[in-house]
Amino acid sequence: MGGIDTKRLRQIVGEEGVRDAPADLLVYGSDASVHQARPQAVVRPTTVEQVQQLLEYCHQQRIPLVARGSGSGMCGQTVPLRGGIVLDMKGMNRILEINLRDGICRVEPGVVDDDLNRELKPHGFFYPPTPASARIATIGGEIANNASGTRSVKYGAARDSVLGLKVVLPGGRLLELGGRTRVASSGYPLERLFVGSEGTLGVIVEATLRYVPIPRFRCLGIAKFDKLEQAGDAVSAIMAAGCQPSMLELIDHVAITAVNRAQNLGLPDVEAILLFEADGMVREAVDYEIERLTHYSQEAGGFGIESSYEAKERERIFAGRKKLFPSLSNFADALASTALADDMAVPYSRMAETARKIHQVAERHGLIMTAYGHCGAGCMHTKILMDTSKGEQWRAARQAVAEIYQWVRQVGGTTSAEHGIGISKAAAFKEEKAPLLELMRAVKAVFDPQGIMNPGKLMDAPDDWLHASPLRYDVDNGEV
Amino acid sequence: MGGIDTKRLRQIVGEEGVRDAPADLLVYGSDASVHQARPQAVVRPTTVEQVQQLLEYCHQQRIPLVARGSGSGMCGQTVPLRGGIVLDMKGMNRILEINLRDGICRVEPGVVDDDLNRELKPHGFFYPPTPASARIATIGGEIANNASGTRSVKYGAARDSVLGLKVVLPGGRLLELGGRTRVASSGYPLERLFVGSEGTLGVIVEATLRYVPIPRFRCLGIAKFDKLEQAGDAVSAIMAAGCQPSMLELIDHVAITAVNRAQNLGLPDVEAILLFEADGMVREAVDYEIERLTHYSQEAGGFGIESSYEAKERERIFAGRKKLFPSLSNFADALASTALADDMAVPYSRMAETARKIHQVAERHGLIMTAYGHCGAGCMHTKILMDTSKGEQWRAARQAVAEIYQWVRQVGGTTSAEHGIGISKAAAFKEEKAPLLELMRAVKAVFDPQGIMNPGKLMDAPDDWLHASPLRYDVDNGEV
Repeated sequence: MGGIDTKRLRQIVGEEGVRDAPADLLVYGSDASVHQARPQAVVRPTTVEQVQQLLEYCHQQRIPLVARGSGSGMCGQTVPLRGGIVLDMKGMNRILEINLRDGICRVEPGVVDDDLNRELKPHGFFYPPTPASARIATIGGEIANNASGTRSVKYGAARDSVLGLKVVLPGGRLLELGGRTRVASSGYPLERLFVGSEGTLGVIVEATLRYVPIPRFRCLGIAKFDKLEQAGDAVSAIMAAGCQPSMLELIDHVAITAVNRAQNLGLPDVEAILLFEADGMVREAVDYEIERLTHYSQEAGGFGIESSYEAKERERIFAGRKKLFPSLSNFADALASTALADDMAVPYSRMAETARKIHQVAERHGLIMTAYGHCGAGCMHTKILMDTSKGEQWRAARQAVAEIYQWVRQVGGTTSAEHGIGISKAAAFKEEKAPLLELMRAVKAVFDPQGIMNPGKLMDAPDDWLHASPLRYDVDNGEV
Repeated sequence: MGGIDTKRLRQIVGEEGVRDAPADLLVYGSDASVHQARPQAVVRPTTVEQVQQLLEYCHQQRIPLVARGSGSGMCGQTVPLRGGIVLDMKGMNRILEINLRDGICRVEPGVVDDDLNRELKPHGFFYPPTPASARIATIGGEIANNASGTRSVKYGAARDSVLGLKVVLPGGRLLELGGRTRVASSGYPLERLFVGSEGTLGVIVEATLRYVPIPRFRCLGIAKFDKLEQAGDAVSAIMAAGCQPSMLELIDHVAITAVNRAQNLGLPDVEAILLFEADGMVREAVDYEIERLTHYSQEAGGFGIESSYEAKERERIFAGRKKLFPSLSNFADALASTALADDMAVPYSRMAETARKIHQVAERHGLIMTAYGHCGAGCMHTKILMDTSKGEQWRAARQAVAEIYQWVRQVGGTTSAEHGIGISKAAAFKEEKAPLLELMRAVKAVFDPQGIMNPGKLMDAPDDWLHASPLRYDVDNGEV
C-alpha cells in the first residue's frame, strides 16, 4: 500500500472534503459493531466525478477504500480493517428523480431511508426494504448489505427493489448496471451482484429503485405463547396456510424481560410473543388476513390475542418490539448489548428450535442471549448481553457465536438474513460458503483486481473476529 | 475442440441416453427461433452425477455443451452455434420436495412449469413466473432465461422466485448457491447471476423456489382505445396511481386483425385493447382494484369497458390474447410469424410510443409487425410477419430489428424483458451493454475458463444474426 497524499485528495474533493483529525479517524473507524480500526483519511465526495477520481487514485496507489453510509452496520462492514480511506457517502444525498409515470425513483447513495420515504409519501408510495435503522441508514448502505426489515415477509429486501445501479470501479470507470424497467433479461444481472457485496466490488453512486403503494389499512395483532415451540408452530402453520402477513415478529422471553425491566411496559411473562400485521387497500382484505393469522396463532396455543387498526393501539402493541433494542442494554447492570450473532436466516419450521438453541448455547457459556426477528422471512436476530469488561465473557461469546452458526448451517439456514457479514460473522460465513470462496474471490478480482475495495471482508475476512481488530470496549485484565 | 467419443458418453448416461441420428440432431439443433445448427450428439442425463461426469469430460476435451429444456426459447438460446453436445435436461424432471412448513419447493430442471403448478395446486399455491409456454417450458429453461409471463407486473420474474440453485460447473464441480430462506445477505448472490445466464456459466441441476397462494378471486377486464397513445396513457396513469393489477396487457391493431381473421372473434377494429386483471383473497379488494383500473382506462379514453369474475366470461375476454400467437401465423397467406425483435422492456411511459415506432419501422421496411405485451411490467413483444421465402424480407427484417432496438435503448429500455438474448437479439444486446461486455466475459471465465458452456452467446454472440447460423426456412433466390 502506498502512502496517502492528502494534498491530492484535497485537489479532488476540496479542502472541506478531507478529514484526518484523530477524532474523525476514531469516529469513522467504527460502526454499530464491536469492532474498530483506524483509517488514514476520511473523504467526503459530493459528485460522481470526484468518486471516479478518487477510485483512479486509490487504484493506482493501491490504497484501501471503504465506502460508508451512516455507519449503522452491526458487524463491522465499514470498519477499515486495512486502513486507507473511508469514503463518507453522505455528501451524495440527492433524490434525483421520482418518476410516477415510470414507477421508479433515482437516488444518490447517501440519501437516508426515511428521507426518501418522506418524499414518496405525498405520492402515496413507500420504499419497502426499510430496516429498523431507517432514521439514519442510507440507501447505499442498505443496498450494499441487502438490508430489509419487519415487512420483508411481504415486500422483500433491498435486492427486490433495486432495478439499476451506477457504480464506480477501482480505476475510476463509471458503469451503468441494470435499468429502469420492472423486468429485464439482458445478460448477467451485475446490479444484483452488487446488492449485498458490502463494498467489496466498487462504489455505488446512484440507484434506480421500485417503490410500492402505501396501504390504506394496517392492522397489528399480538399473540402470547407459554412455549417458544408453540410460537414456532404458529409461524409454520401461518406460512403453510398461505397467509400473507405484512409482518410476523417473534419476541422471546429474554427480550420480554428486558423490555419490562427497562420500560415497565408490563408485557406478560411468557416464553414468546408473536406480533403479526396485515395491510392492504381494502379493509375486508386486511380483516381476512388478520382472522387467519389469529386463527393459526390460537390453534398453536396462542392466547391473549388482540389486534387493532387504530394508530394508538398499534403503537401500544408494538411498543415492546420498538423499544427492544435500547432495552437490551438495560437488561442488568454491567451487561451491555453487543451485536454478535446478530442476524441469521433459517427455514420457518426451524425458527423456534433455533431460538431455543440460542438460549441453551448462551446458558452453557454463561451469557445472556435474546432471540427475536422477522420470522415471516425466516430472519432471526440475537444480541449477546455480556459484561464487556471481562475477557472471559468475550471468549465465551466467540464460542457461542461459532456454535450458533454451526446450528444455523445444520438446519439449512444462512449466516446473514439482512445485516450482512462484516467482521463478526465472517468466520461463520466462510464455513457456510467454503466451497464458493475461491469463486467469490475470482468474481471480486474481475471488478477489483488490486483488492482495494473494503479489503479483508467477506471471503477474505479473518477467521477470528475477536482478534481481527481492537474491540470498541475496555477490557479488564489485559488480553481477550 | 476435440472429437466426441460417444462411447464415453454412453458409459456415463447409458445406451439410451445418447442420440446422434440425423433426425435427432436436426430437432435438437433448433428451438422456437429462426435459427438452427447441428450438434454432434444429444445426451440425456438423469442424475446429477451424470451431469458432473459429462461436464468433466467436456471440460477436458473442450467440447461445447448447451443445456436444453423444451426448446421453447424464441431467440436461439439453445441452438448449438459451435456444435458439440446438446444436453437434454428433460430426463431430470422430478419434483424433489414441496415443503409447506418452510414455504419452498425443490425441483429438477426438467420439470415442466404446468406440472409443478399441478402439484402445488392442491396445497393452494402456484409458482408465478409462468410464461405463455408453461405447458411445455421447463423450470430450468425459465430460470436460465429469467422468464416471466402475463402476471409479472404483480408476481415478478423467475429471478424473484429462485432462492437457491444447485449447479454443475465445467470440470464437474457441484455447487450449492443461495439457500432455502426468504431473505439472505450472505455474500455475493451467485444464484442470481445464474438466473438469465442462458446456460453460459454452468448447468442448473436443481432449484429451490418460492411459491405464492392461489388467489380466490380473479377479475378480468377489457378496454378499447381508438388511439394507441390513449392506451399508453392509461398504463402510465394506472401505475402512477399505485394500482396493483395482476395483469395489464396491451394488444395492438395488427394483433387484433390477426385474431379476427384467424379466429373470427369479432374483436373491435380499434388501435389498441388493454386487458387488465386483479386478483386476491377477498372479493372487495379485487373490486377495488378493478374499479380503479376501469376508472383510469376510461379517463384515458377507453370505451367498451367490461370485466368479469366468471370463468367463462374471462375466457371469452381473454380469447383474443390467448389465440394471438397461433393467429399471427394466419394473418395473411404466405406470411409467417417470426420471433424477431420478439421481446423488449421499456419504461411504462414509453409503451405506446414504442408500439407506434414498431409499426412505423415495419411499414418503412415493407414488413408487418405487431406490438403487444405485459405493459404492467414494461414488457413489449413483437413478431415480424413476413414472407420467409424471400431474401429481401429477411434483410429488411434485420434492418427493422436493429432500428427497433436502437429506439428501445434511446428511451431507456432494455433488449430483453423475459425471453432472453439468444442469437436474434445479440447484436442489440451487445450495443446496449457495450461498456459491460468485457466484465461479463471475465465473469463467465470465472465459471467456465475453457468457454465450453453455450459458446457464442450473450457477449460472445455474432453481431449478424441473419448469418450467424442457417435459417430454419427455405429462402428462394439463393442468398439472404
